[in-house]
Amino acid sequence: MKYSKLFPKSQKIEFKEDLSVNAKYLVKGGFMNQLMAGSWTLLPLGFVVVEKIKNIVREELNKTGAQELLMPLLHPREIWDTTGRWSDPEVQKIMYQFKDIHDKEYGLSFTHEEIVMNLLGKFVQSYRDLPVMVYHFSTKFRNEPRAKSGILRAREFMMKDLYSAHVSEEDMYEYYNLVKEVYVKIFERIGLSVIVTEASGGVFTKNVTHEFQVLSDSGEDEIIYCPEGDFSQNVEIAKVKEGKQCDLGHGPLKRAKVIEVGNIFPLGTKYSKDQKVFYTDKDGSQKEIWFASYGIGPTRVMGALVEVHHDDKGIIWPKTVAPFQAHLLVVSSQKSVVRTADDIYTKLEASGVEVLYDDRDVSAGEKFATADLLGIPHRLVMSEKTGDKIEFKKRNEDKTELLQFDELIKRLKEETEG
Amino acid sequence: MKYSKLFPKSQKIEFKEDLSVNAKYLVKGGFMNQLMAGSWTLLPLGFVVVEKIKNIVREELNKTGAQELLMPLLHPREIWDTTGRWSDPEVQKIMYQFKDIHDKEYGLSFTHEEIVMNLLGKFVQSYRDLPVMVYHFSTKFRNEPRAKSGILRAREFMMKDLYSAHVSEEDMYEYYNLVKEVYVKIFERIGLSVIVTEASGGVFTKNVTHEFQVLSDSGEDEIIYCPEGDFSQNVEIAKVKEGKQCDLGHGPLKRAKVIEVGNIFPLGTKYSKDQKVFYTDKDGSQKEIWFASYGIGPTRVMGALVEVHHDDKGIIWPKTVAPFQAHLLVVSSQKSVVRTADDIYTKLEASGVEVLYDDRDVSAGEKFATADLLGIPHRLVMSEKTGDKIEFKKRNEDKTELLQFDELIKRLKEETEG
Repeated sequence: MKYSKLFPKSQKIEFKEDLSVNAKYLVKGGFMNQLMAGSWTLLPLGFVVVEKIKNIVREELNKTGAQELLMPLLHPREIWDTTGRWSDPEVQKIMYQFKDIHDKEYGLSFTHEEIVMNLLGKFVQSYRDLPVMVYHFSTKFRNEPRAKSGILRAREFMMKDLYSAHVSEEDMYEYYNLVKEVYVKIFERIGLSVIVTEASGGVFTKNVTHEFQVLSDSGEDEIIYCPEGDFSQNVEIAKVKEGKQCDLGHGPLKRAKVIEVGNIFPLGTKYSKDQKVFYTDKDGSQKEIWFASYGIGPTRVMGALVEVHHDDKGIIWPKTVAPFQAHLLVVSSQKSVVRTADDIYTKLEASGVEVLYDDRDVSAGEKFATADLLGIPHRLVMSEKTGDKIEFKKRNEDKTELLQFDELIKRLKEETEG
Repeated sequence: MKYSKLFPKSQKIEFKEDLSVNAKYLVKGGFMNQLMAGSWTLLPLGFVVVEKIKNIVREELNKTGAQELLMPLLHPREIWDTTGRWSDPEVQKIMYQFKDIHDKEYGLSFTHEEIVMNLLGKFVQSYRDLPVMVYHFSTKFRNEPRAKSGILRAREFMMKDLYSAHVSEEDMYEYYNLVKEVYVKIFERIGLSVIVTEASGGVFTKNVTHEFQVLSDSGEDEIIYCPEGDFSQNVEIAKVKEGKQCDLGHGPLKRAKVIEVGNIFPLGTKYSKDQKVFYTDKDGSQKEIWFASYGIGPTRVMGALVEVHHDDKGIIWPKTVAPFQAHLLVVSSQKSVVRTADDIYTKLEASGVEVLYDDRDVSAGEKFATADLLGIPHRLVMSEKTGDKIEFKKRNEDKTELLQFDELIKRLKEETEG
């Protein structure tokens, strides 16, 4: 894609507020734009990043046998009354609830447990119909008292929520533990190293749940964890203290700020009981369904990625989620150089390389600054000095190399697939 | 995918109400399920159909230079006040408007003109920044007084809305006319023959707009049109009458019921003026932006497809949007036959064929009925009689053929690509 055609371009903005790094870079770079506090438009660059995150999540969840669907966002009060959550003061703080002009009461989705259990009630009769694992990517609304930290804590955001229903606690935990492993793999592929952390279930469950936490000083959560990796608890539930030895005799426990990028909840039979959704077992008896839910917020993940992968010039996207693989810059106004660069751009596209081509009539300095800000993994420069070769540089390294076109294609392939 | 694993299976339901064909078949087949009046969950089968529709729309729009993004669904009243639409009684009938617990007023998206113009105001300064063409697939909410006809008139539904901004009326109409042609192509690819129809702009504009109408007795709109294809008007604005000659001397005009699957609005400069979003022209003067919007509802398109493509046994999906290309049925409980069918299923998947495998332990009659209901274009049967061959039949033909596996693959390739 030609940068001259992209909507919008990056902007020079001096932020007044003490904004988070992810908000600064994502807004300056034209990845997202604020509609109101806590509400963001994903601009074309940000949209692509989120789509790539979603596709990784989708691939890995499909491998577990989960199936994608799409549930409504506007919910009737009646279904939320079945579990009593409609009237829970903690829920009412964050759930948008309202009456329409016909006095019918609705809530906006902040999660979908009740809706999924209601759906299961229509289709699950016997043990043969279980397990069911379904997920969707959809909008969530949470009236956060303090919407801040850029896209990390928003009032409207995208969430992948997966729900699983099982015949027994054992079956539920088997799948729950599988998803726990799959989540670690998902985040690894996305470019985030996560610490699996024990936590409370908030308005979802009284059981111990697990959060997927990324170390970052901009995080709002805190954990007590063993850096050797066999223990981590959210400080909200931690009974051990910083400095103590870990149970397995590893180094002293540390306390750190973290960003929560995912969480999983072994909900048990509460929803089945409350909503009166049962299945018939082999012996003909009516039994409760074991239920669990699993969340990942792709927009929050994008914010977390920027918090973790950046320098003082801009973003450094992991190649798996970068909006483009190569950023081609022509830094000359000589017609012959521009013509050669145009050719290379055409040939890169024809070779299937995801390339952003900065074809604007602006200074070399501005183009280099934009490349650093946008954070595309591979920068390609063509100038009067490069001739028919292309200067290749990785966003996270200083070293430059001059490559022939064929070498470049080979190199990009290695870097992207490797 | 194995049908035994799919959530949910088709259901035998005797509908009490006089339901529309699309609702009956889509609900029976497990494509969608009703949460409340006018609100539907897209189940895994329906989700895939809608994704395929979306991908065709996306491909064709991207070719016009349009860029995909994603805008919020919850809108602050202030932006809707800039055009006065917040207080328009016609808008208030269908837009969900409410106050949150902090007394802030919000509306749920029933369209996005104001939000796009607000966004343009932040990025468009000069004529060099235009044109801008952006679109998204997102949820729309409309408090329809009569939500009926299955998924055709819903209160919550998916919509692709495209917006274009231009320096002049001429530029706007040039792109508008391009999209008009592209829409016809999109619907053709999806499997719908549309009649481009002049219509009023409702709460959007006073200009003449265009609707894309599909002939169907279950439609809620009516048009007066020339069957030879050079004239069509919505009866709401038509001044000519049924039976008259068409202006070009073609056969007499007809009146017919239709389903609206898309619409396009040349909005002009109203939004630019009302929202005070201008651009600086070459001569330094401030000018108004010419604006247009373009909608297609992928969920409604799915419903329209079923209305148009079905028989008394079920759906007949066009191959471009079918949830699978092949439906493999094993109609024997002999172990050797099942083993051969299992093998064929594995080989079909390995060959990249999108195949649904009915591996259930139910009668042949039930499997055939399910295949007819689900409407997958190619039915493959394996039984005691077929040996190591496969019986091939198209959903919309009666003829069956016995094919070797290699012949089958070749045939499916031809049918799917042709």
